[in-house]
Amino acid sequence: MSRTLDLAVIPGDGIGQEVVAQGLKVLQAVLPGEVKLETREYDLGARRWHRTGETLPDTELAELAEHDAILLGAIGDPTVPSGVLERGLLLRLRFAFDHFVNLRPSRLYPNTTGPLAGNPEIDFVVVREGTEGPYTGNGGSLRTGTPAEVATEVSLNTAYGVERVVRDAFARAQARPRRKLTLVHKTNVLVHAGGLWKSTFDKVAAEYPEVTTDYLHVDAATIFFVTQPERFDVIVTDNLFGDILTDLAAAVTGGIGLAASGNINPTGAFPSMFEPVHGSAPDIAGQGKADPTATVLSVALLLRHLGHDTEAARIEEAVTADLAARDGSPRTTEQIGAALAARVTA
Amino acid sequence: MSRTLDLAVIPGDGIGQEVVAQGLKVLQAVLPGEVKLETREYDLGARRWHRTGETLPDTELAELAEHDAILLGAIGDPTVPSGVLERGLLLRLRFAFDHFVNLRPSRLYPNTTGPLAGNPEIDFVVVREGTEGPYTGNGGSLRTGTPAEVATEVSLNTAYGVERVVRDAFARAQARPRRKLTLVHKTNVLVHAGGLWKSTFDKVAAEYPEVTTDYLHVDAATIFFVTQPERFDVIVTDNLFGDILTDLAAAVTGGIGLAASGNINPTGAFPSMFEPVHGSAPDIAGQGKADPTATVLSVALLLRHLGHDTEAARIEEAVTADLAARDGSPRTTEQIGAALAARVTA
Ligand SMILES: CC(C)[C@H](C(=O)O)[C@@H](O)C(=O)O
Ligand SMILES: CC(C)[C@H](C(=O)O)[C@@H](O)C(=O)O
Repeated sequence: MSRTLDLAVIPGDGIGQEVVAQGLKVLQAVLPGEVKLETREYDLGARRWHRTGETLPDTELAELAEHDAILLGAIGDPTVPSGVLERGLLLRLRFAFDHFVNLRPSRLYPNTTGPLAGNPEIDFVVVREGTEGPYTGNGGSLRTGTPAEVATEVSLNTAYGVERVVRDAFARAQARPRRKLTLVHKTNVLVHAGGLWKSTFDKVAAEYPEVTTDYLHVDAATIFFVTQPERFDVIVTDNLFGDILTDLAAAVTGGIGLAASGNINPTGAFPSMFEPVHGSAPDIAGQGKADPTATVLSVALLLRHLGHDTEAARIEEAVTADLAARDGSPRTTEQIGAALAARVTA
Repeated sequence: MSRTLDLAVIPGDGIGQEVVAQGLKVLQAVLPGEVKLETREYDLGARRWHRTGETLPDTELAELAEHDAILLGAIGDPTVPSGVLERGLLLRLRFAFDHFVNLRPSRLYPNTTGPLAGNPEIDFVVVREGTEGPYTGNGGSLRTGTPAEVATEVSLNTAYGVERVVRDAFARAQARPRRKLTLVHKTNVLVHAGGLWKSTFDKVAAEYPEVTTDYLHVDAATIFFVTQPERFDVIVTDNLFGDILTDLAAAVTGGIGLAASGNINPTGAFPSMFEPVHGSAPDIAGQGKADPTATVLSVALLLRHLGHDTEAARIEEAVTADLAARDGSPRTTEQIGAALAARVTA
């Protein structure tokens, strides 16, 4: 374990600034004295784009590559054309740093209630592929803006890309008590991509006899998220289905304010990036209303990725305790961050 | 209104047979004496495929085209390779008969409870595009089965195809009391297709000043389906997003056993096709356990499409009354069908 943690910080847009500040506060509080936290903030996002027209210059991409990890707040702003920042910055980072494991745990915390009646037990992890599928930007449009326009989006899937994320998911399932892995796709319609995912899944499954496997079409999976979320342990799925399912997972576990994520390159060739699942929420930005818990939990994922398991667990326990103590009275972003920082040091 | 209703019936696989029988029973009961119901059953689905290797021969497709409408049960069976029947039969019909409006109403019926705490009011309609998007079968795979495999799926979107379904959705929204239409897509990532959908939506919106419009990314839409389903009135979306969202809609309104759908060709050039949203449920097939209500409600959509509005409303009232009277004691498929048939004649 290295003596310094050299962190790149991209607060980004909207509530990104506010939640990242609290994430850093808790990180600083939980780190053992002998680990020195060094941070460098990168001014990327809507303001930068308005000022310079840049989303992510190559020089900054190269600098980002030198850090141990990246903490990101949120990207996207209504004043910037849709897709410019998402694709030019967020997706560019995921693709450039080959973040093929987009890890999104979902948990209904004890003593909290979600929107589902009966308060089912929910504790699963979605392993979303992060570098392929419909997210590659492949496609285009012809005769744009005319009545004869044709627009395409191409989902690209490779054995190389599918196998590495499927292997990662099997290893994660093997390490959990229930040892269950569900593949989600739409093999009955998307037969080409679906065939590749299914055959790869079945091949790797043979190496993990202790892992129980299961397949669901994406439409059926959304039903089970609502009616039987307790049936899931680890889920592996493609980039777009993973995007949809993890927002739904956040909703059934009591809100996008708690959903953490890691964009992970398990090889270590590039830094991994940790961010809340929620967006920049421009409607509540700057008002101290955002819940920083998702960012704080993303910091826990970051610590675990870097081998600081004890500290990661301390954060998760602090969040559990804080949620259990919530009595419904409103707290500011800063107050929640301070409460969590106090708990991790207690 | 014609004196005969000439209906093609495709019971299909699994519970399809059972639920279609009850749908026909209710249809026969509700039709006024002067309308003669003529049905012709088509033996299509898993058994036919096992017997002859055929999914839908051209001759039968031509015969189907001559009917006033089609009632379909469910397609798909675990003994047939995934996709063969779905693509060779169900999707073939949707594409051949140009069913560009896939209409899927969602309603939480009075006196029933869904899985969401607080029992929110839910009454919306999803207008799912039915002939384009990722469903065209475009794509392929190279070096299949090798470590160098590449598999693609191409989403095809045309101004022609998008505009006609968007127009249909605006007309439906205009005719409803709340007059609200939400476009769901993923414009920030799928910029080519998303751009076409958004610009078409905005263009048609200018012709409907009384309709309030709204846009949501598909991931955010799933959150609102669970946390604020009452915010939706009419939703228009692409083929794949519509597939996912309508299963989720069925889940939050108390189950796939109630979700009806119409595959509609509003031009009348080909017969429209009505089917429950649920699948063939092989696990409960042949046991009399399936709820035929979704099929019966699909019959109501069929009647409304053919101009029999009074009879459609009678069925919907019968379903409402039957649901309100349910006391949780189990009833067979046949018992539910008989109860609904009795109510529509009462
Ligand atoms: C902002 C957007 C590009 C992003 C995605 O679609 O991946 C977000 O929804 C997410 O889930 O991280
Ligand atoms: C069976 C399958 C091809 C179909 C679809 O994906 O459209 C079904 O899920 C539906 O929603 O009608």
